[in-house]
Amino acid sequence: MAKEITPRSEDYSQWYLDIVRKARLADNSPVRGCMVIRPNGYGIWERMQGQLDTMFKETGHVNAYFPLFIPKSFLSKEAAHVEGFAKECAVVTHYRLKADPNGGVMVDPDAKLEEELIVRPTSETIIWNTYRDWIKSYRDLPLLINQWANVVRWEMRTRPFLRTAEFLWQEGHTAHATSDEAIAETRQMLDVYAQFAEEYMAMPVIKGVKTVNERFAGAVDTYCIEALMQDGKALQAGTSHFLGQNFARAFEVFFLNKENKQELVWATSWGLSTRMIGGLIMTHSDDEGLVVPPRLAPVQVVIIPIPKPSPELDEAAAKIAAALKAKGVRVKIDNDDQNRPGFKFAEYEMIGIPVRLGLGMRDLAAGQVEVARRDTKEKTNVPLEGIAEYVSHLLDEIQQNLFDRAKAYRDAHITRVETWAELEDVLENKGGFVSAHWDGTTETELEIKEKTKATIRCIPLDAVEEDGACILTGKPSERRVLFARAY
Amino acid sequence: MAKEITPRSEDYSQWYLDIVRKARLADNSPVRGCMVIRPNGYGIWERMQGQLDTMFKETGHVNAYFPLFIPKSFLSKEAAHVEGFAKECAVVTHYRLKADPNGGVMVDPDAKLEEELIVRPTSETIIWNTYRDWIKSYRDLPLLINQWANVVRWEMRTRPFLRTAEFLWQEGHTAHATSDEAIAETRQMLDVYAQFAEEYMAMPVIKGVKTVNERFAGAVDTYCIEALMQDGKALQAGTSHFLGQNFARAFEVFFLNKENKQELVWATSWGLSTRMIGGLIMTHSDDEGLVVPPRLAPVQVVIIPIPKPSPELDEAAAKIAAALKAKGVRVKIDNDDQNRPGFKFAEYEMIGIPVRLGLGMRDLAAGQVEVARRDTKEKTNVPLEGIAEYVSHLLDEIQQNLFDRAKAYRDAHITRVETWAELEDVLENKGGFVSAHWDGTTETELEIKEKTKATIRCIPLDAVEEDGACILTGKPSERRVLFARAY
Repeated sequence: MAKEITPRSEDYSQWYLDIVRKARLADNSPVRGCMVIRPNGYGIWERMQGQLDTMFKETGHVNAYFPLFIPKSFLSKEAAHVEGFAKECAVVTHYRLKADPNGGVMVDPDAKLEEELIVRPTSETIIWNTYRDWIKSYRDLPLLINQWANVVRWEMRTRPFLRTAEFLWQEGHTAHATSDEAIAETRQMLDVYAQFAEEYMAMPVIKGVKTVNERFAGAVDTYCIEALMQDGKALQAGTSHFLGQNFARAFEVFFLNKENKQELVWATSWGLSTRMIGGLIMTHSDDEGLVVPPRLAPVQVVIIPIPKPSPELDEAAAKIAAALKAKGVRVKIDNDDQNRPGFKFAEYEMIGIPVRLGLGMRDLAAGQVEVARRDTKEKTNVPLEGIAEYVSHLLDEIQQNLFDRAKAYRDAHITRVETWAELEDVLENKGGFVSAHWDGTTETELEIKEKTKATIRCIPLDAVEEDGACILTGKPSERRVLFARAY
Repeated sequence: MAKEITPRSEDYSQWYLDIVRKARLADNSPVRGCMVIRPNGYGIWERMQGQLDTMFKETGHVNAYFPLFIPKSFLSKEAAHVEGFAKECAVVTHYRLKADPNGGVMVDPDAKLEEELIVRPTSETIIWNTYRDWIKSYRDLPLLINQWANVVRWEMRTRPFLRTAEFLWQEGHTAHATSDEAIAETRQMLDVYAQFAEEYMAMPVIKGVKTVNERFAGAVDTYCIEALMQDGKALQAGTSHFLGQNFARAFEVFFLNKENKQELVWATSWGLSTRMIGGLIMTHSDDEGLVVPPRLAPVQVVIIPIPKPSPELDEAAAKIAAALKAKGVRVKIDNDDQNRPGFKFAEYEMIGIPVRLGLGMRDLAAGQVEVARRDTKEKTNVPLEGIAEYVSHLLDEIQQNLFDRAKAYRDAHITRVETWAELEDVLENKGGFVSAHWDGTTETELEIKEKTKATIRCIPLDAVEEDGACILTGKPSERRVLFARAY
């Protein structure tokens, strides 16, 4: 089984596709660029949703749902926004089919829409059009709303999870009475994303702000968390936008402030998507298959009676399972006797179950069980007495180890460079983030991208003020930014 | 506030729209027939989702996600299916916009899709096309999958929740090795829906099977739960379909059975949607606003310090809230001092919070609190000592009372009739379900519908065999069916 995966050293890109297929995370679909998220992949997404949703609610947000379709004219109301999204919009033009004289069905030409509808690529426009009715005075603010939804962006080159025409995400859209409050919200949600990434995805991230060129279409400022994949490429893992009054202006959303004056409302939006599942794969997995952090694993522990189930073994397995469940562990017993243990072991390694317990008659007689951890592939014989406590701690240890491992790799791949030659050398031969000075112009940024395929991932929030010279132009710079090739 | 709702006795239809608007459940949107589900409405849907999802998982189902778009040709593969859905399909024909020389954006004629895509009205076709790859042998069966998704059916006359162009739902799609197993699954999920409706929505339902004419497009048998609204009209509240081998045949999904022979796979599908929120409104609410069963209420108890908050009152309120939370009750304290208590009372009645606690200085001195229940509008002074226990029991009592009340109304509105005159009289003057004999033909069914606007809601599963004469034709009949006018 394991052999069916292309080793990372051989072809990282093919390794990724093999993992997605062999761990049954997603399938391609007959619809170009759209994927089918299989139960193994969706189970991880459900855990991610559950945790994020809890964190959103703890910070005062509520969920709502806005229409899938956006009237074409709405998109044009914010100039930068339409510029950013027009080229990748799926457009609904008709609302009926009819029998085709040549067989099958055809679009009914009599059922043409007066105004075409766009399948939402993001919902700022339809939401701010609605907020106009909901916001009258400062008493209606802040409005802290999140939506779980599917969105469509007609990407030309797609890749499961990382870049698909349709994807699932959450999009927060908040409205505030002051600029300060909106900025604080933008930053708060960035912190929520960073905490989620690090504590649940076990994915270390750098918090930063995007350059003008990399900003969300319609934003005043885009904050992001950036992660590093095992192949040295960066991944934007979540974004939080301070939208200023841009959408309020476009949709005429005013509020009566405490001084009884009409004022435009301040906005934020922030999103995290199924793209993160791609990031999860490329942060932790190995040549034997998927590795999932225990906190997000739909099944955390599998118990396998060996060589085949018997009443005695089944009873012992059930007892362990009950003790684990009592500790809140998600556990499954595999006593299917159609597959050999070796096959099962490889299969559970492939789908990334964090801990595997192998229980044979001899183990039972010795009062022990074989515990195999997915992250290090270590096996240990552990006394049955106190096994639930042991496994419960082990799950925490695995979660921590995955984070530590990823962080060590990430930290070893932030390279400070001073010269152009160094920049090129690191990007070409080492990979990872390159910390370098930049003169602050879009022109220079684009030229560097053109020459190296690296983009400015972010200006880290913790960047220190230091005088320096731009890596390309030698012009003065006040702080370093992070360059990387990225997904 | 309460006066802003049209009384039910005056105009039931307007009363419904008033509730939806005043309880801030949903808004109309600028997209024809699509609604915005506001936080108050979405909060109820989240509770419904959470409970249904738990019940699906307890019965062995897992979640997955399939594409929003369906290639047009897929729809034609099952003849009855396309016949049922072709007339209400939103069709994507282009994938790009461009700048319009006259301003704004226009559809780019160079970005026309080779094959049009249908926005899913339901997902049998795209899912069974996928199952062909997933199912090879009996070992792959049963396949028990559910999807939470949005779907689009271009309805001409729409109404918030009850009939909208886009709605949210879950759709289960299962695959089985035998007809018996698929039928058992169909019936099991009908039972899950009935249990959910009665125990969580507090909505009594009748389980039955649809006539040929009312069957889902592509099904062999459609089972349903039917509920009765306060105005005497029925509402189909959930359906579970035995699809036979129809979709397996259309998409060539075979499996190798235990005898090593290729056989077509057996299928079911079952769905429940945001339509149920409309049913919830029309089952329990009154002229003062929404009434929500405690088990589905996002906030179950609101505590209001009266006349205005003070450190002492706030402290007492916080203490009660903590005691309630410890019992798993969802509680909110409203110590906003901008609105008068009378306004707040009306507001919380409007949005249907099951229990309201009013706490004044005099109450505090007397060691008591005023408890108001939303269902009966009774108010009682209750000792602060043991208040959490009291309220926790009261929530159960309210849940039960709502069900009992709805069931008493429903039971009083199932009328057995023997003659055509009686049928017309009941439909016209009393409403509700009419239990009558029918000769079993679609012709008669349609003629009755034409004459009375009543449809056969279902043949109840518990219908007894009894000889009778069809209410319209006098032809022999073996059991009674339920007629009603319906949403």
